[in-house]
Amino acid sequence: MRQSQLLMPTLREVPSEAEAASHQLMLRAGLIRQLAAGIYTYLPLGRRVLRKLEQIVREEMDRAGAQEILMPAMQPAELWQQSGRYGEYGPELIRLRDRHEREFALGPTHEEVITALVRDEVSSYRQLPVMLYQIQTKFRDEKRPRYGLLRGREFLMKDAYSFDEDWEGLHRSYKSMYEAYNRIFTRCGLYYRAVEADAGSIGGEGGTHEFMALADIGEDTIASCDSCDYAANLEKAEYGTELAAHYEQGQKQDELERLHTPAIRKIEQLVQALGVSADLLMKTLIYVADGSPIAVVVRGDHEVNEIKVKNMLSAASLELADQETTERITGAPVGFAGPVGLSIPILADFAVMALEAGIAGANEKDYHLGNVKPGVHLTNAQVGDYRNAAAGDKCPRCGQGRLTFHRGIEVGHVFKLGTKYSEALNARFLTAAGIEQPLIMGCYGIGVSRLLSAVLEQHSDSNGIVWPESIAPYRVHVVPVSSKDQVQMDLAMHIAARLSDAGIETLLDDRDERPGVKFKDSDLIGIPIRIVVGKHAAEGIVELKRRNETQVQAIGLEEAISIASGIEN
Amino acid sequence: MRQSQLLMPTLREVPSEAEAASHQLMLRAGLIRQLAAGIYTYLPLGRRVLRKLEQIVREEMDRAGAQEILMPAMQPAELWQQSGRYGEYGPELIRLRDRHEREFALGPTHEEVITALVRDEVSSYRQLPVMLYQIQTKFRDEKRPRYGLLRGREFLMKDAYSFDEDWEGLHRSYKSMYEAYNRIFTRCGLYYRAVEADAGSIGGEGGTHEFMALADIGEDTIASCDSCDYAANLEKAEYGTELAAHYEQGQKQDELERLHTPAIRKIEQLVQALGVSADLLMKTLIYVADGSPIAVVVRGDHEVNEIKVKNMLSAASLELADQETTERITGAPVGFAGPVGLSIPILADFAVMALEAGIAGANEKDYHLGNVKPGVHLTNAQVGDYRNAAAGDKCPRCGQGRLTFHRGIEVGHVFKLGTKYSEALNARFLTAAGIEQPLIMGCYGIGVSRLLSAVLEQHSDSNGIVWPESIAPYRVHVVPVSSKDQVQMDLAMHIAARLSDAGIETLLDDRDERPGVKFKDSDLIGIPIRIVVGKHAAEGIVELKRRNETQVQAIGLEEAISIASGIEN
Repeated sequence: MRQSQLLMPTLREVPSEAEAASHQLMLRAGLIRQLAAGIYTYLPLGRRVLRKLEQIVREEMDRAGAQEILMPAMQPAELWQQSGRYGEYGPELIRLRDRHEREFALGPTHEEVITALVRDEVSSYRQLPVMLYQIQTKFRDEKRPRYGLLRGREFLMKDAYSFDEDWEGLHRSYKSMYEAYNRIFTRCGLYYRAVEADAGSIGGEGGTHEFMALADIGEDTIASCDSCDYAANLEKAEYGTELAAHYEQGQKQDELERLHTPAIRKIEQLVQALGVSADLLMKTLIYVADGSPIAVVVRGDHEVNEIKVKNMLSAASLELADQETTERITGAPVGFAGPVGLSIPILADFAVMALEAGIAGANEKDYHLGNVKPGVHLTNAQVGDYRNAAAGDKCPRCGQGRLTFHRGIEVGHVFKLGTKYSEALNARFLTAAGIEQPLIMGCYGIGVSRLLSAVLEQHSDSNGIVWPESIAPYRVHVVPVSSKDQVQMDLAMHIAARLSDAGIETLLDDRDERPGVKFKDSDLIGIPIRIVVGKHAAEGIVELKRRNETQVQAIGLEEAISIASGIEN
Repeated sequence: MRQSQLLMPTLREVPSEAEAASHQLMLRAGLIRQLAAGIYTYLPLGRRVLRKLEQIVREEMDRAGAQEILMPAMQPAELWQQSGRYGEYGPELIRLRDRHEREFALGPTHEEVITALVRDEVSSYRQLPVMLYQIQTKFRDEKRPRYGLLRGREFLMKDAYSFDEDWEGLHRSYKSMYEAYNRIFTRCGLYYRAVEADAGSIGGEGGTHEFMALADIGEDTIASCDSCDYAANLEKAEYGTELAAHYEQGQKQDELERLHTPAIRKIEQLVQALGVSADLLMKTLIYVADGSPIAVVVRGDHEVNEIKVKNMLSAASLELADQETTERITGAPVGFAGPVGLSIPILADFAVMALEAGIAGANEKDYHLGNVKPGVHLTNAQVGDYRNAAAGDKCPRCGQGRLTFHRGIEVGHVFKLGTKYSEALNARFLTAAGIEQPLIMGCYGIGVSRLLSAVLEQHSDSNGIVWPESIAPYRVHVVPVSSKDQVQMDLAMHIAARLSDAGIETLLDDRDERPGVKFKDSDLIGIPIRIVVGKHAAEGIVELKRRNETQVQAIGLEEAISIASGIEN
C-alpha cells in the first residue's frame, strides 16, 4: 500500500477531548474519528487492526468448537419482556418503534434472541451440546461514554452461548471457552488476569470470570494474591479473616462507655478526637433494601461492598437511606448511627465481629459508645462478608499471601448462566430418559473494539504506538528518506514489491514529505519493522529498526527482506 | 466439521410463509431463521456463505484500490437534516432518541457520514482521489418486507464512496468500480446484466447503472436489445421512435369526428366498441405535479412512466389527480379526458405524435373524438419520452434490434453523485491552482445479503440448492451410508480428515440417520461434491457425485480425494 493514497490523517497535537492514552493514540495515529459521543468511525488503519482482532477471535472460537452465526441488532421488545429485562435494563437499552409502532430494542447482548432460537431448533439431548457465537455490533446508551472505544455506545463484540444437558456439560463448555479466551488474549499481546467476578445484572447461578487487561485507566479494581494465583474483581473479592487489635480504655469488663463526641461524625475526626486507630471503629450505615431499612456495620478502615450486601439479601435494589430515614431510625443525625439498640436488621462484617471491643455511634446526637463487644452487644447481627477486600488482607485461598490491588479493563467475561433464560423463555429439551428439562446455558463475551483500546493502553511509548506483531495493521514500513531521490524511491519500491509479493503486509511511505515528518508518523503508527532507504541506497544498504527496540541495523537489501519476511530474525 | 454437531435444522416441508424459491430454500436448508418481519438470524451454514460473499467483495474492492473502513449504524439526525434527506426519506428511515433526547437515524446508507468524514480529513487535491468502502449492517423500515433476504429491514451491504477532483476523475473511479462489480458478480456465479437506471432519491447528476440478477421473482423490469448490448431498467429505458398506423374512418381531412361512447371509459372497451387497435388511441391521464395539474398523453397500448414525467418536470411530487380534480379540469367524468381543448400543460409522448391521426377522450361524458391529428390538434403539447419502453420497441442505441423484457433483482448500484452531498455538507478541497471546490463524489452499493438470495433464485433444482463452488458453505460432503457400520465410518472419517488437513472445507454426515434422510439433506444443502461411503468401503471404493450433475462415479479412495481436492477433475 502506498501511504500517499492511504486515508491516515495523523495529528501532531494531543487532542484535548481525549483523556485516555489509547484514545489519544487512536486519534493521533488516524485509527478512528468520532461521529457522536461514544460513536466512532474506524479509518483504514483502525479497520485493519479490528479485522485482525476479529480473525484471532474467530479462529479460537472455531477451535473451541463454537459455530459462527449472525443475529440481528433489532430485537423485538416481547423477548425482553419475557426475560424480564426490558424494564430492568433501564436507559442503557436503546429502544425504538417501527412504522407499525411495534417496539424494538437495539441489542446490547443476545441472550434472549439466542435462547428463543435454540428453543425452536433444538429439542433433544442428541443435539447437545451446542455452542454458537457471533461477532457483531452492539448498542448501549452509556450515561457517560468516554475513553474512546473503552466505553462507547456502539461497539463490536464477540458473544458466544453454550447449551448443555447438565451442569457437568456446562462446566466443560465453560472450561473450553475459558481456555480459548486465554489463547485469544495471549495472541493479542495483552497483559491480563482472569479474575473471579460478580454475575451482575446478567444473572446466573454459576461461576463467572472476568478477563482484565491491566491498565491504570481501568474502571475496575482487581485484588490478587501475592503468593498464589487467586485474583478477583473487588466487587467480589473475598479475604481471610484476622483478629484485630483490642480497644482498651478505662472501661469495665462488658460495660458500654459513653463518649462525648460533639459534631464528630466522620471516621477521620473520631480517630483524631479519640486517639484510636480506624480499625477499632464500627462504621454503621443505614440502607434501604427493597423498601425496608437495614444497618450494615463494617470496620472504620473498611468500605461497604454493596454488591455483597445486595447478593446476601437477594435484594433487587439497595440504596443508602436519606437523612430523614436515618434520623427516624437511629433517633440521631447522620454520623451517630451504631448497632447497639437498633430495632432493624443488622448486618455485621466478619472483621467487626473479630474485634474484642470497639467504638460505635450511640444513636444519640454528639455521642459514641466505647467498649462495644460483638460477643456481648452484637449477638443479634447477621454476620457475613459485607466489605471490599483491602490491600494487605490475607488471601482467602492460600491463607498465606496478602492481597494487592491493580486497576483493570474488562475485555472478556465468561458466565455460567444455568437456566435463567431457558426457564424464562421456556427453552426445554428431552433427556435420554425422555424427561423435559430446561437447557443449561453459559454465555461468553469479548469486547472486540474495547480490546483494541486495551492493547493500546499497554503497547505504546512517548513516540506513539508499538503494535504487537499479531495485530499490527502492517508488518513492515518502508520509508525512503527522500521520495524525490530516484535511487531511493526505486529501491524502496523494489523492497515493498518483493515483500508484498511474498504476502507480507507492507506500507510504503511514498509521500513527498520531510524526513522528520515521515519518521514521526512512522513512530506514531507503530508498525513493527521499519526499513529506511537513505543515502546508501545506491550500495544496496538500508537501515532496519524494530519499533520495540532502539537499535538500528545497517544491512544489505537481501538480509533486510529476509528479516522483514520473518525468514530470519 | 461433523454434521451431528452442526446447528443445521433442515425442513422437509416448504414453509408456508415463504413465497420466493430462495426464501424457501434458505429456510429449508437451515441457512436463516426469522426473528421479526424482515429481520433474520443467519445460522452456521448461512453465515459461512455470507462470509464467502463478503470475502469476494472485499478482495475485489481492495483490488480496485478502495480502502476498508467501518462507519457507525447510529447517525446523528443533524447530518441528515443538512443533506435535506431527514424529511425526504420518510418512514423507511428508522429514527430513535438517545437518553439525552438527541435524535439519531439508523443508517440505511452512509452518504452523509462519509461526506462529513472526508470533509474533515481531506483538504487538498494531493490527497485525491480517495475511495472508501465498508461492509456493514444497514436498516430500512420497509413497508412490506418480503421474499426473505430480498427485501429485509436489517441487511448487510457493501457501500463504497469515491472522492475526486473533477468529473474525469469520477469517470475513472466509476469505471474501476463498474469493473470490480462485474468481477464480483461473475465470481459469485450470478447471471446478471448491468443496466442503465434512474438515479432515484439518492440524487446526483451523472450516470448510474444497476446490476440486475435475472430472476422471475425480481421486482424490477429490464429492457434489453436483442441485437446490441443496450440494457436499462424499465424506469429509465428509452426506445427508438417509429411511425404507427394511420387511423382511418370516414372523416374529412382535419376535421374532428365526434364518437358516441356511452359509459366506455377503458382502453379495452374502446378497442372493442370502435373496432380499432389500441395503438391508435391517445390515453390521457390527469396528474398533479407539485400542486399543479398537467395532462400526460400516451398511446393506448403504452404505459405512462411517472419517473420520466417527474424528471422532465423536475417535480418533487407527482400523483394521479383524484376524481374531483379530473372532473373539474376536463368537465367530464374519469375516462373521457383528452388533449383537445384542455387549458392545462399537456405532455405528449413521441409515439402519440408519430400518429397521423388517433382517437382521444372528448372531455365530455360518453364521447370520444376521432381523427385527432397531432400536427393539427396537439401543437401546444410538450413532446417527449413519457412512457415505459414496450416489448418490440426499436432499440434506442443500435436502432436495429428490438427490446425484450426480463425481470431482475437489483444486487448492485453504481452512481455518479457529483456534488449533491459535498455541496450540502460543505465538503471542499483546494485544487492545484489554490481554488476551493466541492469534492466530486460517486457511490457504489452491493446488497450482500440480497446477493445471497439472488444466487439462490438461480442455483437450485427440485431437490434443493446447487451452490456455485465459490460460495458453497463446504466444498465436499462425505456421507457414510450407515454410520453404524464401522468400516464405512472409519473410511469416511479418514477421507474427511485427509481433506480437512489439505485445507478443503469438508462436512461429514456422521449422524445416525437413515440413508434416505441423509441423501435428501445432502441434496437440499447443495454442497458441490458428495462422496458416499457405502457397501464397497472395505475395498476402498466410494461413490463421487457432483451436485450439478446426475452421474455417479464409483472410484477408488485416492482418486476421490484428488478430485475433491481439486487436484484432478
